[in-house]
Amino acid sequence: MPRYKAIIAYDGTNFNGFQSQINGRTVQDELEKTLYKLNNNQSITIFGSGRTDAGVHALGQVIHFDYLKARDVEKLRFALDTQSPADISVKKIEEVSNNFHARYHVIEKTYQFKIDTGKTRDPFRRFYASYFPHSIDLAKIEKALPDLLGEHDFTSFCAAGCSVDSKIRTIYEASVSQTSEDEIIFTFRGNGFLYKMVRIIVGTLLKIGQGKIKETAIPEIIAGKNRRLAGPTAHPEGLYLVQVIYEENSMKTIQNR
Amino acid sequence: MPRYKAIIAYDGTNFNGFQSQINGRTVQDELEKTLYKLNNNQSITIFGSGRTDAGVHALGQVIHFDYLKARDVEKLRFALDTQSPADISVKKIEEVSNNFHARYHVIEKTYQFKIDTGKTRDPFRRFYASYFPHSIDLAKIEKALPDLLGEHDFTSFCAAGCSVDSKIRTIYEASVSQTSEDEIIFTFRGNGFLYKMVRIIVGTLLKIGQGKIKETAIPEIIAGKNRRLAGPTAHPEGLYLVQVIYEENSMKTIQNR
Repeated sequence: MPRYKAIIAYDGTNFNGFQSQINGRTVQDELEKTLYKLNNNQSITIFGSGRTDAGVHALGQVIHFDYLKARDVEKLRFALDTQSPADISVKKIEEVSNNFHARYHVIEKTYQFKIDTGKTRDPFRRFYASYFPHSIDLAKIEKALPDLLGEHDFTSFCAAGCSVDSKIRTIYEASVSQTSEDEIIFTFRGNGFLYKMVRIIVGTLLKIGQGKIKETAIPEIIAGKNRRLAGPTAHPEGLYLVQVIYEENSMKTIQNR
Repeated sequence: MPRYKAIIAYDGTNFNGFQSQINGRTVQDELEKTLYKLNNNQSITIFGSGRTDAGVHALGQVIHFDYLKARDVEKLRFALDTQSPADISVKKIEEVSNNFHARYHVIEKTYQFKIDTGKTRDPFRRFYASYFPHSIDLAKIEKALPDLLGEHDFTSFCAAGCSVDSKIRTIYEASVSQTSEDEIIFTFRGNGFLYKMVRIIVGTLLKIGQGKIKETAIPEIIAGKNRRLAGPTAHPEGLYLVQVIYEENSMKTIQNR
């Protein structure tokens, strides 16, 4: 059976997260419903690069699924895109080898986190940025960011529900930029992120920007391996899964037949 | 009684337009509900610079209202902003003379219209731009735009429900710009616009961009004074009321007491 890799985007506002679950509307369920129709009412399971929580957005989430027979990738992309709800878009599909797995072969993920720092909350960003109208010293945040880089045990930045064996992750990039008078955007690139890790990092950095946590505190927080040492969990609506990158040899893209 | 002028923004997605009506949620009703609470359960009527339709957005709609007693404008702004629903924001309030009227003293309005021209519809812009994935020749549109400028009888660009006495309006600016690979934005500035006029102009210009109406056709369409000569009405979700400007002497801003 041919295997397809797809890059999808979604507005997370009206989803109870990516992954299928008993309660609430999810991205996985909606895509599987569309595939079921496209595939003559036979179910197809999709596998994502990882979960995203309720309200969290994706610009470049990656999924894979097996299809009964080979299809023209652009026709499949168009059908899946246009027949899925309008808050999901299917940006690209390619056929990949049967070894490819959207979750297991990830080598790098990029997240961004947008903050609305305006005096009045922007109605157009209420679902697309986290509102934080407090005074922030960006220089303090910029001083703290390099301490996140490299391989660390990020237990202190992992939510209570976090049950993975290893909490060691490597962060390659941690940056912030003021994109307009009333918006700042954080970017984090790493080999993987724990449950709510990006949101806890942002919550901590905002406390640093407010002067409520010292800009030199990150190494101690990491070393303490205690969630209570870090700041609060930032709101989901500011978070975007931007890009997922895979091992070269897992990809072995098969030319469109 | 002191009179206040306010600049408000709203995400029109979940409103059945600006103006109070029997069915559906409106911006006017929501603001009047907030003012009712702020004003010890006495009703206050607000007056807008004009209506906007269901789904149409505003970055700079202007309203006025009378308040029983003078209030600090920043406190009033903060209360009205934070106690109104999150899809409305109150950006600025100033006290004005009792002669000021948000509708009658308008001398200029600016509208913008955003178009998502991407191959796949962007889920994040589905309520904030009109999706138009067809090939558009911007040069044709740019050739047609100057024919809209100046004083004309815009009967051909007025929807059926249009019942004003005079359909003569003056357009000062009509421009288009490609703001990214998959977005174009139209800007129109004039002394006033008829019911659905901007959306019919955009619908006509898109037909010109597609080569389905000639780029030299605007003068004939205007001269014909017939709605059927113009193109279709573009979708509301692309339209933004950006700015409303008033006669200098109508303003006579009163210093904050």
